[in-house]
Amino acid sequence: MKDIDYNALAQTYQTPLYVYDLQKISSAFLSLKDAFRARKSLICYALKANSNLSIIHHLGTLGSGADCVSIGEVRRALRAGIPKYKIIFSGVGKQDSEIQEALQSDILFLNVESEKELQRIESIAKALNKVARISIRVNPNIDAKTHPYISTGLHENKFGVDIQQAKAMYIFAKNSLYIEPVGIHFHIGSQLTDIEPIRQAAKKIAQLAHSLIALKIDLKFFDVGGGIGIRYENENLISPYDYSQAILEALYGLDLTIICEPGRFLVGESGVLLTRVLYEKYNGDKRFVVVDAAMNDLMRPTLYHAKHKVECFDKQDLESTPCDVVGPICESGDYLAKNIMLPPLAHGDLLKIENVGAYGYSMASNYNTRLRPAEVAVQNGNARLIKNRERFEDIISDEEKLLENVGHIDSHSKGEL
Amino acid sequence: MKDIDYNALAQTYQTPLYVYDLQKISSAFLSLKDAFRARKSLICYALKANSNLSIIHHLGTLGSGADCVSIGEVRRALRAGIPKYKIIFSGVGKQDSEIQEALQSDILFLNVESEKELQRIESIAKALNKVARISIRVNPNIDAKTHPYISTGLHENKFGVDIQQAKAMYIFAKNSLYIEPVGIHFHIGSQLTDIEPIRQAAKKIAQLAHSLIALKIDLKFFDVGGGIGIRYENENLISPYDYSQAILEALYGLDLTIICEPGRFLVGESGVLLTRVLYEKYNGDKRFVVVDAAMNDLMRPTLYHAKHKVECFDKQDLESTPCDVVGPICESGDYLAKNIMLPPLAHGDLLKIENVGAYGYSMASNYNTRLRPAEVAVQNGNARLIKNRERFEDIISDEEKLLENVGHIDSHSKGEL
Ligand SMILES: Cc1ncc(COP(=O)(O)O)c(C=O)c1O
Ligand SMILES: Cc1ncc(COP(=O)(O)O)c(C=O)c1O
Repeated sequence: MKDIDYNALAQTYQTPLYVYDLQKISSAFLSLKDAFRARKSLICYALKANSNLSIIHHLGTLGSGADCVSIGEVRRALRAGIPKYKIIFSGVGKQDSEIQEALQSDILFLNVESEKELQRIESIAKALNKVARISIRVNPNIDAKTHPYISTGLHENKFGVDIQQAKAMYIFAKNSLYIEPVGIHFHIGSQLTDIEPIRQAAKKIAQLAHSLIALKIDLKFFDVGGGIGIRYENENLISPYDYSQAILEALYGLDLTIICEPGRFLVGESGVLLTRVLYEKYNGDKRFVVVDAAMNDLMRPTLYHAKHKVECFDKQDLESTPCDVVGPICESGDYLAKNIMLPPLAHGDLLKIENVGAYGYSMASNYNTRLRPAEVAVQNGNARLIKNRERFEDIISDEEKLLENVGHIDSHSKGEL
Repeated sequence: MKDIDYNALAQTYQTPLYVYDLQKISSAFLSLKDAFRARKSLICYALKANSNLSIIHHLGTLGSGADCVSIGEVRRALRAGIPKYKIIFSGVGKQDSEIQEALQSDILFLNVESEKELQRIESIAKALNKVARISIRVNPNIDAKTHPYISTGLHENKFGVDIQQAKAMYIFAKNSLYIEPVGIHFHIGSQLTDIEPIRQAAKKIAQLAHSLIALKIDLKFFDVGGGIGIRYENENLISPYDYSQAILEALYGLDLTIICEPGRFLVGESGVLLTRVLYEKYNGDKRFVVVDAAMNDLMRPTLYHAKHKVECFDKQDLESTPCDVVGPICESGDYLAKNIMLPPLAHGDLLKIENVGAYGYSMASNYNTRLRPAEVAVQNGNARLIKNRERFEDIISDEEKLLENVGHIDSHSKGEL
């Protein structure tokens, strides 16, 4: 396998630039798939982590399904070639039109998050004269020990329903002509680095599955959500083997297909963000490296206080000193790394921000009228563009047309003001 | 003035929907302009707060200039009809191409944030054989007492240069054939609710201006930045009158045109975000109102822990209980309001999230493949669309073309995997 020539990529495609190593995605996928080889399993990649069509397509060629949280993501999965029977639709707030389109697309099932939602699904399925396959997201009330914004398995979170409610909903579903309960689902959080909460949650939900099966509810899928963490700094890692063992143990005596919905684990380590230094500056003693990427390109540092390693390409022989790596956006929250060690840098030097394959581009915005970066995928030494850098004309044209339409109205009203 | 019929707007344009009351923008602008009537002044609206072309254009018809922080914003200002001599370009990380285009566009001046940047501006101006009008952003090292992410006037922040550095840069600028120092600039933070830090900063910078003028540096503009706060909850407000008095006092004996760069103050209170209830749900005792807007539409609650009032339209006679208003995005950080009082709500009920005119739409993203909402402006009882809701086809088409291009390569490589 050839090393990726980041300097050449930055030259060709300009910066800021996201670069993904598809080989790393393949390895991560295959290691997880392999860990579950003793059982029927389906890995549904959580598109929210990185929804670029070429990334989804690549995972699809490996056999991955798709975990989607909006009808937009369902459409992406279908367009990327994921078969409909490998697509699931999760999420705490589905709109009527989304439910309708999901049912019409005949995907594997919908993960249901509340009683009210189940009722709406029933009435929409009835109107379409279809049977809606569903799974219910159960909130096991277990602390996943991760950042509060991405911890989702406690009752104080908005997700899922408790075990009692879940039972009532399964019975309702079983008795409905328009609903077929086929699975059970939980997801306790993202960037998990401790296996214990997963083990506990899997046990609790497996118990519930036993009692549902005793009620003649014909479950087929045991969906354990996503959440396996990756190494940003020196986090403890959950190995695919330990992960699968914890789940297989819980499933003892249950003949269910395992579904898991990893996002970060599959794509997180595959991605880097390339950025060039604009200026160095000192304010008092404090050193800042101002680069051409910003919080609009990568929200994780400012939103989750996430720490991403930053590396430079040359100058490794020069003495490093502490600095903040910051972007051009006019807020102090616009930083990419704080208090890290880097050698002296000059205009044009290239930096690589690591492990940004998940929740990087997918959260990017146009704040400060910055154009979202290009994305490149590298496979077998070949790079190809998978998303063009945005162009100013594309982001302005709609507003411009709408303003031109009223040109004459405005010149009238000018007098009044 | 007619009341805005939000129900009708939500019906016509669907939800989530941003609605701006242009009359409120006019009032805010005119109150500030009036407060400075004793002096030459130029209000440069800070586009970052809300960069919709129709909003900029509206402010332009009132006489506003533009404070821009990227070349994209400079282009927006020009397209919206702001005269070039009222446009300034600020920001801590300007790219060479941005500096070049700004000089070619012949805008009023560039706010410079570091020595290195000044040197680059000189060399770019020289290459273009132009004289670059500049102002220097001085960091007064004063605590603005606001959220740390939007506090910018301390040395530990990345912004501006200290007073000693500033002097050296002014002397360099004066001696350069390609640079003309015309202004002095500071900005200590956003959402300011206390006049004291502004008063102190203005005094400190005015002293510096005196000493620069003594060095025969021919300053024309005194740019006091933006930052005047608005009332989200029950914050203390700085009145335009007190604000102008604090600045005029500091300017005693200095014949300079005052520039200010308000963003939030001009547009913040003009905007609401309309959203419909999808479901209500209880997890244990905790009540959640799940709506069709989410953190991708409005980042402020999750990013700054900002508090926005939420109102419903009917049902005011029913008893309110505490709840969280949350969106459909799969993270616990996706909330719009926490622990607020609302009456019982049902599918389809309309809610209004207040004071989102600034840093609302401008920070929106496509996270979870959600489409960014439409924007509507209301003036004299007439509503008009100023931005269409995004369409799925528009956000996917580039990725789809790039994936189709390699269709045959992929079917080859499939075998290998
Ligand atoms: C229901 C669900 N499944 C899967 C995921 C993917 O999580 P991760 O990227 O941590 O694997 C998430 C993340 O928020 C989720 O909410
Ligand atoms: C240099 C500068 N000017 C003006 C503003 C506008 O601030 P506000 O919207 O608080 O008025 C900002 C905000 O970040 C800024 O950085």
